[in-house]
Amino acid sequence: MKKKIVIIGGVAAGPKTACHSKRLLPAADITILDQDSLISYGGCGIPYYVSGDVSDEDELRKTSFHMTRDESFFLHAKGVKVRTRTRALAIDRQKKCVEVEDLASGARDTVPYDKVVMATGSQPFVLPIPGADLPGVYTISDLHKAIAIKQELARGAVGKAVVIGGGAIGLEMAEAFADLWGAETSVIEFMPQILPRIIDPPFAVMLQNHMQKHGVHFYTGEGALAIEADASGRACRVVTPKRTLEADIVVMAAGVRPRTQLAKEAGLLVSPLGIVVNSRLQTSDPDIFAAGDCIETTNLITGRKFFAPLGSLANRQGRVIGDNLAGIHSTFPGVVGSFIMKAFESCIGTTGLSLEAARAEGFDADASLTAPSDRAHFFPTEAKMPMQLVFDRKSRRVLGLQVFGAANDAALARINAAAALISKGGTIDDFSLLEMAYAPPFATAIDALNAAANVADNMACGRQRNVAVQDFLAWMDAPASQPDWLALDVRHPKEVEPFAEKFGNLWLGIPYNEVRGRFPEIPRDRKLIIICDAGTRSYEVQVFLESEGMPETLVLGGGFNVISRLGVEWWPKK
Amino acid sequence: MKKKIVIIGGVAAGPKTACHSKRLLPAADITILDQDSLISYGGCGIPYYVSGDVSDEDELRKTSFHMTRDESFFLHAKGVKVRTRTRALAIDRQKKCVEVEDLASGARDTVPYDKVVMATGSQPFVLPIPGADLPGVYTISDLHKAIAIKQELARGAVGKAVVIGGGAIGLEMAEAFADLWGAETSVIEFMPQILPRIIDPPFAVMLQNHMQKHGVHFYTGEGALAIEADASGRACRVVTPKRTLEADIVVMAAGVRPRTQLAKEAGLLVSPLGIVVNSRLQTSDPDIFAAGDCIETTNLITGRKFFAPLGSLANRQGRVIGDNLAGIHSTFPGVVGSFIMKAFESCIGTTGLSLEAARAEGFDADASLTAPSDRAHFFPTEAKMPMQLVFDRKSRRVLGLQVFGAANDAALARINAAAALISKGGTIDDFSLLEMAYAPPFATAIDALNAAANVADNMACGRQRNVAVQDFLAWMDAPASQPDWLALDVRHPKEVEPFAEKFGNLWLGIPYNEVRGRFPEIPRDRKLIIICDAGTRSYEVQVFLESEGMPETLVLGGGFNVISRLGVEWWPKK
Repeated sequence: MKKKIVIIGGVAAGPKTACHSKRLLPAADITILDQDSLISYGGCGIPYYVSGDVSDEDELRKTSFHMTRDESFFLHAKGVKVRTRTRALAIDRQKKCVEVEDLASGARDTVPYDKVVMATGSQPFVLPIPGADLPGVYTISDLHKAIAIKQELARGAVGKAVVIGGGAIGLEMAEAFADLWGAETSVIEFMPQILPRIIDPPFAVMLQNHMQKHGVHFYTGEGALAIEADASGRACRVVTPKRTLEADIVVMAAGVRPRTQLAKEAGLLVSPLGIVVNSRLQTSDPDIFAAGDCIETTNLITGRKFFAPLGSLANRQGRVIGDNLAGIHSTFPGVVGSFIMKAFESCIGTTGLSLEAARAEGFDADASLTAPSDRAHFFPTEAKMPMQLVFDRKSRRVLGLQVFGAANDAALARINAAAALISKGGTIDDFSLLEMAYAPPFATAIDALNAAANVADNMACGRQRNVAVQDFLAWMDAPASQPDWLALDVRHPKEVEPFAEKFGNLWLGIPYNEVRGRFPEIPRDRKLIIICDAGTRSYEVQVFLESEGMPETLVLGGGFNVISRLGVEWWPKK
Repeated sequence: MKKKIVIIGGVAAGPKTACHSKRLLPAADITILDQDSLISYGGCGIPYYVSGDVSDEDELRKTSFHMTRDESFFLHAKGVKVRTRTRALAIDRQKKCVEVEDLASGARDTVPYDKVVMATGSQPFVLPIPGADLPGVYTISDLHKAIAIKQELARGAVGKAVVIGGGAIGLEMAEAFADLWGAETSVIEFMPQILPRIIDPPFAVMLQNHMQKHGVHFYTGEGALAIEADASGRACRVVTPKRTLEADIVVMAAGVRPRTQLAKEAGLLVSPLGIVVNSRLQTSDPDIFAAGDCIETTNLITGRKFFAPLGSLANRQGRVIGDNLAGIHSTFPGVVGSFIMKAFESCIGTTGLSLEAARAEGFDADASLTAPSDRAHFFPTEAKMPMQLVFDRKSRRVLGLQVFGAANDAALARINAAAALISKGGTIDDFSLLEMAYAPPFATAIDALNAAANVADNMACGRQRNVAVQDFLAWMDAPASQPDWLALDVRHPKEVEPFAEKFGNLWLGIPYNEVRGRFPEIPRDRKLIIICDAGTRSYEVQVFLESEGMPETLVLGGGFNVISRLGVEWWPKK
């Protein structure tokens, strides 16, 4: 008898499971159920469709060989049945069938199964505030909403846009509004930084500053209290505790929650993080598997369960389920948390834990903040690429990496390599020796990632001691807060000049290559904050001064390259 | 007493060792000896200096903060003494001193040491052919020669250039001559393919074809027999067994050999692959270390010794020696062999073993040849990126990766991740689940590298059976050689048309999404070669046909995307 596999959900994990299963079990009877009319689209592409990078929504539904992934495609090309506009109402685990409703006709029937795969995805979290349901307020939850948003833009109805939520989707939508469509765009984020929990504050500020330069306004640490309507009943204002922002369109991008209602009602084990599965992605019922945004997964670094709603993971999980349905033992051990995002001319990427997250997890964590070149500094397209390697001081294990680079694949090349080593428990020493490919158009002889590890090594061994960027900024704002600090700026005298003018005797300039001759000029009763462009020269000076009996020094990691990207307002000569 | 460290060689490993040692041992007395007047330059940047991407040779000698790395810089900024134009004549291990000669004055003296670091590098292999020493014949061995070549180009003296050797340096020089300077450029390679031993034939041909389209001529399988002079005594022709090529300039880029004479004469253990060192990079004399192009190293995949002359490795090794000189136990375990190279609008990268090398080493090796997208196929800058993952069928260990991509960092992002996992003994399954960062501007939801691993999985499990590209090409050239073969082309009818016209009843077109309905049309007495654009649809069809009792099929891995890059001459409608 043919094996009957019913898959609930037709966007990422569902179709992937269906197609891989069908290839392994050509005789199986496989049905995908989805309550939507559109399935198997590239949801992560929605911001690029809205921005105009992708001209037609159909592009998000096509294969790379230009066939639209609709019911007919799945039936004829894949041998998989799809029932769209069909809602799964319940899973009857005794009778082994799924009760469904045809949303067009209201008719109900049952679909028998041998195995069920739940790929019910996630749903956007809608803030419980007045006006959240007004016309003109959109979540980015499906392709229909994306089409509606683009129609509003295309007919010129959007002069001002407000995005509630500074996560990845919110930021990508903000770029789409501001870039091609020239809308005056604001982002509201309840937490004190954008991309909270994902990246550390200096990287969040670098990103925010870059987006601000491209016209996006940010209001962090401000929650939306209400969305108000105009006379026609359409959303026109977003109210926060501090201000009221006019809006022709409002995007609610306040995160997503796993869609687990059906699993709960079927009596499956469900946590607040999603449907509980084992490493083979089986739920508490061995005949029911689950994958994608609706499940909880394991963080491979902390060992803890967490929620990682990413289309790339959904696809990898779909393959694992397909294997197991076909009797091939296959596991999904968990997630390190790789992430990348384009923002105008920049990109931000991360893998593993941020420094804040690592410390919250109880690691003895520190981070090497650097500003290396993404390729040979003499190559024409070279750019600096601030980078932070998070590590555990005791075990020397690398816990995470953050990169802020140009809008090319340079950051990706380091994030992917780091993700690979982190998943294998890589240490600082592994990263130091990691064989990054080298030619001047692609890297420096000591690759940026190797260099970040070398700095981490120096820090873990106690040879390099850094000042925290935020402490340095606070001192520049109010030098009296650290009365014994003295900035030792080893850059070129022309770079030092404006700072020496502003800070007077708090700022001492001695060029890097003169320190060995002139160090007796440096007062011995002050704590030195050593400053250069990237941190590398500062470290050399720190080591040298220590050998001359001056151990009271701190290095500004990443140097002024990082500071200058933070867009702080007291910047001299501005 | 101050520790006296003498470093012989001032380009990559030498200066790195010197500077890292000095930071760890600030009191040490460190001297670099070099017979050249120019030191610490970016030798890998020479082709970009010749091409004009780098305007001034001084750029190759500068730090990222624009200081020239000369004797004064090392002394004042680094605290390291440099003696240029000073040749190390001998190492007296009894008296613990290095005998040196000042090349300007001819004066000799001795430099005492506690530890010596040999960073003597490599020297170009000069073919023992008549005319190899004529004026106008250059090796790419130091910055002086690069300056001389650029001067010849700049004064318009180079209309025709001949490069002897199709390795990385030869190809980079060929691009430099042909691209900016418009010279008619030919590359002669003795082996049957360019980049021999580094990449497999299909990738070598893709690269060669791309460079041919940009005007470079190639003569593979042809050795240079002689270089002939004009009346003025200057090189003007290169003679091979098959032709005579006119040349205003000849570059001899036939590989490099480790420079080990000094080590041999000092009685150190030396193999044909270089100075023998342990994992701490100590030679057979524990007071003498060695690093860079002059040493033999261990291949981490095969366990065998080999020669890996790369500036990036030299720098990593320098750090390891510095650690050990300072009493920090640090090791350099070996090399997986990461490599990347730009060529006009393309780039080629590899890490680990090629398929040929893996088989020669006795692995039960196979390779998944694919043609995935480097980013979401709906993203405007998307490009196909042929890729080959080499694996061992029995152990499922991944042995290597080759990528041919656009001239951006997309290939790098996959090479680096693969190098990281290969160095940790990663399997096909590790690669399948490797958490490559995903957003549409940077990757596909199932990253190209994950997809390559999925195909490898299908092959290792026997579900996917491929035809070798060269066998398919041979059949297209002479169909009678395989009289029972039939091409089953599942692409769009318009794509199929010219092939059906040319090949008649050897070529059957059934669109991918019609195969499930029309498979009874397919003759059952023929061996089917299933063809699409990338290989993925072909695999689905192979699995389906097998389930219908037709197991005699082979997939063309990488599909016509790869075939079309091979530039074969019988291409229809050309």
